[in-house]
Amino acid sequence: MTKEDLFENIKRKRSFLCVGLDTDVRKLPEHLQHEDDPIFEFNRRIIDATAEYCIAYKPNLAFYESMGAFGIQAFDKTVSYLREKYPDQLIIADAKRGDIGNTSSMYARSFFENSHVDAITVSPYMGSDSVSPFLLYPGKWVILLALTSNQGSADFQMMQDEKGEYLFERVLRISKTWENAEQLMYVVGATKAQMLERVRAIVPDSFLLVPGIGSQNGSLEEVVKYGLNKTCGLIVNASRSIIYADNTESFALYAAEEAGKLRRQMEDALIKNNII
Amino acid sequence: MTKEDLFENIKRKRSFLCVGLDTDVRKLPEHLQHEDDPIFEFNRRIIDATAEYCIAYKPNLAFYESMGAFGIQAFDKTVSYLREKYPDQLIIADAKRGDIGNTSSMYARSFFENSHVDAITVSPYMGSDSVSPFLLYPGKWVILLALTSNQGSADFQMMQDEKGEYLFERVLRISKTWENAEQLMYVVGATKAQMLERVRAIVPDSFLLVPGIGSQNGSLEEVVKYGLNKTCGLIVNASRSIIYADNTESFALYAAEEAGKLRRQMEDALIKNNII
Repeated sequence: MTKEDLFENIKRKRSFLCVGLDTDVRKLPEHLQHEDDPIFEFNRRIIDATAEYCIAYKPNLAFYESMGAFGIQAFDKTVSYLREKYPDQLIIADAKRGDIGNTSSMYARSFFENSHVDAITVSPYMGSDSVSPFLLYPGKWVILLALTSNQGSADFQMMQDEKGEYLFERVLRISKTWENAEQLMYVVGATKAQMLERVRAIVPDSFLLVPGIGSQNGSLEEVVKYGLNKTCGLIVNASRSIIYADNTESFALYAAEEAGKLRRQMEDALIKNNII
Repeated sequence: MTKEDLFENIKRKRSFLCVGLDTDVRKLPEHLQHEDDPIFEFNRRIIDATAEYCIAYKPNLAFYESMGAFGIQAFDKTVSYLREKYPDQLIIADAKRGDIGNTSSMYARSFFENSHVDAITVSPYMGSDSVSPFLLYPGKWVILLALTSNQGSADFQMMQDEKGEYLFERVLRISKTWENAEQLMYVVGATKAQMLERVRAIVPDSFLLVPGIGSQNGSLEEVVKYGLNKTCGLIVNASRSIIYADNTESFALYAAEEAGKLRRQMEDALIKNNII
């Protein structure tokens, strides 16, 4: 998916919401436990209920891998379902990979050739040659961790060099020089919204994937204030607050309601800032 | 496995070699391609041929995941085979995970409860709460990336703060203060052997997992010179130079020969430094 396609989807759906499919088999509604593949069934119903409100889905690989081969199959089925039924959705494999070159090549093949996702999250710790194999797929996106939403992000990402540059700023600055850097997006947590000004000073035009709204208490208003650019430039993710909004047979309805609420707030922000 | 057990194994086998099972289905000897599970068959023969020369095995998850559910099954079978036939081997899942707390918890469960590996490699980029869930399993090890063997490691790991401390030193220093830090080991690449002095100044007693010998041209002599401590403190990994030493029906024999050569060099180093 190109940047232009993504922006078109955002304008058409008046939303920049990403729904995180952090599907935990232990948290599923009771009545789904009897299905052959409860994980996929849950995802399918969440997707059908929320697709009109969002422009992206982000399955978190940890949740699927924790169930072994069975979980991986559920992940693959979810990606195939999205590809077939909702081809306009950006599919982000939240995997936070990053390894030496030949290993990153295997991961890139795994996600972009076997799974047909549009984007994968990658950790920058090992540097350029750990990321570059993911940048070899035209039309695919690498979403590099910059400043994450968790408390521990301060431990290393906020390290400063003698000129006052933070590690996350260095990640943004140096990655911009890599080949095919136009295929990069960045993770910047909503819980660090004030830092978005510093992020935008380095990558004014890039799309940012922003987790931390909802269960992690990040503010959508702050994110929009500091992060929005002229092609929106934001993909804001909510996971638990949407998919676990309810635990009964009506769970999909409640998920749709939560996604709808966020979409309305996003529409307001897009109108107020003359994006639509 | 305790640190004492590991040191006992090193003394008994006169080796601190780890064999990396970076098994790439495209590189397997022709005659194995007709097996039901060529990946597992390859691993089984490599393991049987090399087990007397090494104290650890390190399957790299990327290689298994790139083959989807089938690859994950081969990984699980490999771990089970090692557990049953060679219970004294340390099994390291080279996965380089690291995510927000609830997600790292899922990964920890995946590797330590479902897979029964002894150790997992983890990326420090997201900080304390991304690593701590892996440290909740008594007897299990977290091997934190510090200074990796690839060229790109200089991009961020060698960033210095105003006092001259490198990012990889900060990772060592700060991680030492975390709860259950005695369950930490660190990845330090053989290609950065001179930096081992700086590493040992911060973590004199920790075990280090050292990749980069063999195909990546790191020097075992240098690693020993700067990295050895009184309980050895080193687990030196070689992958491709052992498992792909030969591509014929005799591949396992050649793998044993390569592993045997490294073991002899390690024995010499252990004797010369009065460890055995």
